[in-house]
Parts: sequence; C-alpha cells; structure tokens
Amino acid sequence: MIQITTLKWVPEFVQGYVKDLPVRWALEEINEPYQLQLITRGDQQSAAYRKEQPFGQVPVLTDGDLHLFECGSILLHIGEKSEKLLPKDPQARARARTWVFAALNSLEPYIQFYNNFMQGSNDQQKNNIEMLVTKRLEAMESWIGDKEFLEDQFTVGDIMMTIILRLVSESDLMQGCPRLKAYSNRCMARPAFKKALQDQLKTFADNAPS
Amino acid sequence: MIQITTLKWVPEFVQGYVKDLPVRWALEEINEPYQLQLITRGDQQSAAYRKEQPFGQVPVLTDGDLHLFECGSILLHIGEKSEKLLPKDPQARARARTWVFAALNSLEPYIQFYNNFMQGSNDQQKNNIEMLVTKRLEAMESWIGDKEFLEDQFTVGDIMMTIILRLVSESDLMQGCPRLKAYSNRCMARPAFKKALQDQLKTFADNAPS
Repeated sequence: MIQITTLKWVPEFVQGYVKDLPVRWALEEINEPYQLQLITRGDQQSAAYRKEQPFGQVPVLTDGDLHLFECGSILLHIGEKSEKLLPKDPQARARARTWVFAALNSLEPYIQFYNNFMQGSNDQQKNNIEMLVTKRLEAMESWIGDKEFLEDQFTVGDIMMTIILRLVSESDLMQGCPRLKAYSNRCMARPAFKKALQDQLKTFADNAPS
Repeated sequence: MIQITTLKWVPEFVQGYVKDLPVRWALEEINEPYQLQLITRGDQQSAAYRKEQPFGQVPVLTDGDLHLFECGSILLHIGEKSEKLLPKDPQARARARTWVFAALNSLEPYIQFYNNFMQGSNDQQKNNIEMLVTKRLEAMESWIGDKEFLEDQFTVGDIMMTIILRLVSESDLMQGCPRLKAYSNRCMARPAFKKALQDQLKTFADNAPS
C-alpha cells in the first residue's frame, strides 16, 4: 500500500497547511488507500531520513520500491495512475504538468515570502513583495477568466494551484481577484479535498502532545 | 522545428542567466535543433503573449501544436524525447523529475530571495535568509557526496539543479560545499552547457541596442 511519511504533530497555525495535503487530496480523488508513517521533528534531522528526503522536509511517498519527495513530483506520480488526475494525451498531460510547476515556482515563492517576511520589513520591501505577489495573482485572475479549471479538465495542476492559492485565500491580496477566488473555492468544494483536510487535522488531533 | 520564445535583449548583469538557458542546454544534449522567437519587454505585457505565458515571462517552448511554459515543465517534455535526459524506467524517471522540482521549489526560492532581497534588509533578516540558503546547500552537499550526478545517470534533474546552483557559484555560501561546487562545475563542463551559454550570450550581443 502507498505510504505517506509526514509529521506526527505540528503547532496549530501550521495544521491544515502541511504539504502532505495535496498528496492526500490526489489519492482521495482516485480512491487510492494509503497509510501514514509519522515522524517527529527530531527524525527529520537524522542521517537515515536525509537519505529519503535530503532537506529533511515532509512528505515522502513510498510506493513499492519507489521513494519520492517533492510534492510536485509526487503529484505527477499519482497522476499517472489515473486519467482523472492527468490526461493520457501527451499534450494535455504536458499542459497539466506545467501548472504544477507554475504553482510551485511562479506563485509559491512570492506568496511564502509575503507571508513569512512581511514582519520586520521596511515599507519599501513590503511594497516590492506585495507588488510581486499581486501581479502574479492578477495574472492568474486573467488566466482563469470564465474557465472552470486551469485546462479542459480537473488535474493535479488544479490541486497544486489551489493548495498554493489557499495560502492567501483570506488575505486582502485576493480582493482584486474574484474569479480566482471562486476557482479555488470550487476546487476546495470537492469531497476529496474536504476528506484530505479533515484527515490531516485528525492526525494532528490524535497525536497532540498532552 | 522546436521554437524557443525568449527575450531579444536584457541588461548585461542578466545575460547568461535568462531561463531559456536550461532549455537550450537540454536541446543541445540531444542534438535537437531549434529556432528562436525573440520578443521585447513590451511584448511580454501584451494580451496575446499572456495567453502563451500567463505571467509574461520567458521562455515559452513551441513544439508543433504544443505550447509550454515553466522551464521545469519544458525540461520534462524535452527529456521525454531521449533517454539521455530522462530514463524510460518509471522509477528512475520519477526520481529524475523529483530533482527538477527540488531545484525549482526547495532551492531556487531561497537563493533568489538571498540574491535579490539582501540589500536593504536588516541584520536579523539577512541572517534568517542566509541560514535558510546555507542549510539547503549543505543538504545538497551531503546528498551529492561521492556521486557523479544526482542519480545514476545525468538527467534533466542535473540540468535544472546546476542552473540554480550557478546563481550562487561565486558566492561565499558555496565555500562550505566543495563537493557540490565540483558537481556543478562537472555539469557545466559539458559541451552542451557551454554551447547553450555561448548561444544565449550571442543572441544578446547580436541584438544589443545601438
């Protein structure tokens, strides 16, 4: 059975945002069962774990002999199990993969630095980062337009994009992007997302330090 | 013939660092000819170009009817043309893809913010970003160890990783990472890298504003 290695527990403000979420979501979409391997912050530093995940992060996916890290790469692997997540047509497949990269390289870095480095920054820096994030969200607002999903069907690209947009879903940054907000809400309304989120929260509740 | 859309000209400090470089490199590795479509900074803002590349960035790859952006996604597409860049074995292929994501999501964001946001930051911020980058480079130093490449053979993962490591190749950050530096030098010694870099520089030289 597929195994996801993730953290046993994280502080409340991170709960619901650990990167096993897109992996759980993709597996729920195709009704693929999985088991968890739960590790602690100490385990993340061990030499043995660094052979699985060089940066000590989570998640790691184990599927038979295959050990994979980087949630984008894991999503492509899971996507290849079902056309519900990744079309077989090579062109459509390449387009879907593109959005996984777009979420992780053209959006997430700016959103993460906006969320993590705004405190303590001077006004000039705040303006620069805010402008970078806003421009990229506006670009996505234009792209999504009247589309239901990023391309012709729901794919792993939509999973990754929604997970990243969700990092600013409650922020003022999204006020100028009503269609993008509706798009991410549409994706988050899927039963597989709800189940995945609920299961991540349950893992942390079950393992809360006493 | 494959077409790469990239910028006609950029200021000198960006020359050699435009992201068409990994795409040119991959195409050189498999001796696949390509032609250029050169655009200006003004073209990047046009509605027509935003339909090709929602963020207005370069490169875009056109291969027959397929239009792709995000250099990670483009590398996977080119990789699928030859086992010299991406093994056919599904497990080895998944591992190679993982490194493309690792370069673009676990290393580049920190390196880019280190390079772009250190100026004007306070000491606390500088220390935070420097520590983040250093930890990740040290993780890669441990990973590479005595390996020749990231996995058993040279792949698109090595191309993407080298392109990102090159952003700090002359920095003090790399002083504690002799094996990582030797690895990226080994990759940059490949004739295909040298040809790709020379060709990018030639494009900008040929189109320099008078």
